[in-house]
Amino acid sequence: MKEDLMAKIMDEVMKKMGDAPKQETTPVKEEKVEEPIVEKAKPCSLTEFVGTAIGNTIGLVIANVDYNLHELMNIDKKFRSIGIVGGRTGAGPHIFAADEAVKATNSEILLIELPRDTEGGAGHGSLIIFGAEDVSDARRAVEVTLNELDRTFGDVYGSSAGHLEFQYTARASYALNKAFNAPIGKSFGITVGAPAAIGVLLADTAVKAANVDVVGYSTPGNGGTSYSNEVILTFSGDSGAVRQSIIAAREVGKQLLGTLSNEELKSSTVPYI
Amino acid sequence: MKEDLMAKIMDEVMKKMGDAPKQETTPVKEEKVEEPIVEKAKPCSLTEFVGTAIGNTIGLVIANVDYNLHELMNIDKKFRSIGIVGGRTGAGPHIFAADEAVKATNSEILLIELPRDTEGGAGHGSLIIFGAEDVSDARRAVEVTLNELDRTFGDVYGSSAGHLEFQYTARASYALNKAFNAPIGKSFGITVGAPAAIGVLLADTAVKAANVDVVGYSTPGNGGTSYSNEVILTFSGDSGAVRQSIIAAREVGKQLLGTLSNEELKSSTVPYI
Amino acid sequence: MKEDLMAKIMDEVMKKMGDAPKQETTPVKEEKVEEPIVEKAKPCSLTEFVGTAIGNTIGLVIANVDYNLHELMNIDKKFRSIGIVGGRTGAGPHIFAADEAVKATNSEILLIELPRDTEGGAGHGSLIIFGAEDVSDARRAVEVTLNELDRTFGDVYGSSAGHLEFQYTARASYALNKAFNAPIGKSFGITVGAPAAIGVLLADTAVKAANVDVVGYSTPGNGGTSYSNEVILTFSGDSGAVRQSIIAAREVGKQLLGTLSNEELKSSTVPYI
Repeated sequence: MKEDLMAKIMDEVMKKMGDAPKQETTPVKEEKVEEPIVEKAKPCSLTEFVGTAIGNTIGLVIANVDYNLHELMNIDKKFRSIGIVGGRTGAGPHIFAADEAVKATNSEILLIELPRDTEGGAGHGSLIIFGAEDVSDARRAVEVTLNELDRTFGDVYGSSAGHLEFQYTARASYALNKAFNAPIGKSFGITVGAPAAIGVLLADTAVKAANVDVVGYSTPGNGGTSYSNEVILTFSGDSGAVRQSIIAAREVGKQLLGTLSNEELKSSTVPYI
Repeated sequence: MKEDLMAKIMDEVMKKMGDAPKQETTPVKEEKVEEPIVEKAKPCSLTEFVGTAIGNTIGLVIANVDYNLHELMNIDKKFRSIGIVGGRTGAGPHIFAADEAVKATNSEILLIELPRDTEGGAGHGSLIIFGAEDVSDARRAVEVTLNELDRTFGDVYGSSAGHLEFQYTARASYALNKAFNAPIGKSFGITVGAPAAIGVLLADTAVKAANVDVVGYSTPGNGGTSYSNEVILTFSGDSGAVRQSIIAAREVGKQLLGTLSNEELKSSTVPYI
Repeated sequence: MKEDLMAKIMDEVMKKMGDAPKQETTPVKEEKVEEPIVEKAKPCSLTEFVGTAIGNTIGLVIANVDYNLHELMNIDKKFRSIGIVGGRTGAGPHIFAADEAVKATNSEILLIELPRDTEGGAGHGSLIIFGAEDVSDARRAVEVTLNELDRTFGDVYGSSAGHLEFQYTARASYALNKAFNAPIGKSFGITVGAPAAIGVLLADTAVKAANVDVVGYSTPGNGGTSYSNEVILTFSGDSGAVRQSIIAAREVGKQLLGTLSNEELKSSTVPYI
């Protein structure tokens, strides 16, 4: 009993530390904890189930959305099929992953919502819905998103005190436009700092580091963050400038968040920017 | 010291797992952990104190509400007495329990609010206020609510990854009408899934499983959930149809939430639907 | 590895219990846990860094705010420098501390925002921005705020089940006016109870205990609490009356919150009221 509890406690704590939830069907071995974790979904016989991923993320598909639900969701009836991706931890990673999915598949982004979550952390979870006329397209969009998450969690750095997040794309598409008003086709990046005080300084650092065009600035009180304890700066511009701003902010952010705890700040997976 | 801490850690973790908080005055014994837990309130000499219940819920009564507070709360002056029920974890269980209380007592529902809580989980806490002209009625409404909670937590299934909730009544009354616009006197049910992606599929499953009338559909972003990571479907109709929809959604929900962790999904108390 | 994890778990749990996060650069010794904790910021070479404090609070300063950020933050251009204070746990303590800072320095309060946070708890984090024409004034405002926090956390009492907070000042200034509409120059106090049900009874207790003027009453659903699970009463009046109301509510609050768990309710630091 105690052993069992101990294992559960460790699971809980590892997740809080910003590591991925372990979802293997075999008992977690200690020596695996440090590895980048690729989620292996537990088997599920439901045809609607697509897979799971880091951040307690689940991917689902509905081949023929019920007529009533169509109405409730305020979705164009032409989208017979929808893909659904949502998780407890992470919004930026999911939106940037979904952006790749709409580029790669014949689907559209119908809805992006940001619950206040992260399982006791300072940020968001997410709910993203893709629409498609054909179920295979909706399923493919979900699969691409789940597969991209391992990359887009690469510049998420968490400790028990807060987290930092950086995202970059060379060419923004419809998911980023829907969520952040990103100009389509242009390079686009975001900086996120929690607690929010850190996010303010990341924003100042980013805009000073290179010549970027600010797209948005979200704070806990201005309606942009669903009351999360984050400040988010979004910007577009020349690809090199966007990256330069992010890299400067990331360097500053790690130093600041590092003052709040003795934990090492590591990437949730592998940095990509 | 370490033993002491260990006990605290276990308390924390057991609660996160969706079990009830232990509130006995004697040290918690390990062999009691698996039992359905009936709360025994710690003694409190305040006349305003009624009792406690699962979900860190407390029940209180004010015999003569202060004149100023009446104004602030925007309550009709005829309600000299108010009953107060609120907790950290659970809104559906509390509202369905309060619905039995208004049926059984001479009281009215004045206010139902849903804070974003569940102690790091994906859902809500609750704050419910009953009004009565006589303090004994207000107290009785609180007592009935606290007593019903053990039942209404029966179809709440939690893991560290999220939770499922199902509620059913053969005849909705004023609490369900106030909180969810439930048609009074009709059979009424709800499905809740967290993370929200699961809740979307539960909604689709429920409306396809039987001929029910959808009353509402709440998502993290449409204003219905106080930014919790849930999707909630509410519906009324023939009693058999409402139950059939819930049972179908519950079966699907357990399979989906089960893919996100290896924990067994059990009822918080004893299933009643 | 296991030892390491154990240490992290204990850190997590101690923080949840309402104690201050430990931020010493040396390993935390067990016998230090019960002491009132004065934060020693880890070294940080960034000139923008001022310090850290209880509640995972960080203090920062920007000497010359970027032109674009000025626009985004909607700040008068005359404030070339800003001071930033924000944390994961605590809003009342930070606002009352900031109130001392505006009294003591040549700075103004530009923004106070309350994210829904407390790291899985029932309340808020905070983001406070000071404006100054000179960077030394902005820095000084942040320093005063960080130093005051040890005092203003004195009447914060937490357990795993919820928390109580009481604040008092003999003379409210601009921070309290901005955050709570406190009449400037008058004695001012607040009572906070979580779960919210307890806060309702604290409000009734406070207004009955002495002749105070109610300034505001915030609940999870009336827009005043960013969906936290708290009810907050704010009031001003004669200094003795304000204190009397707080002391009466504190006595009641401790008894009520005490019924929800077996943990001892202690001050986060040292009571000051």
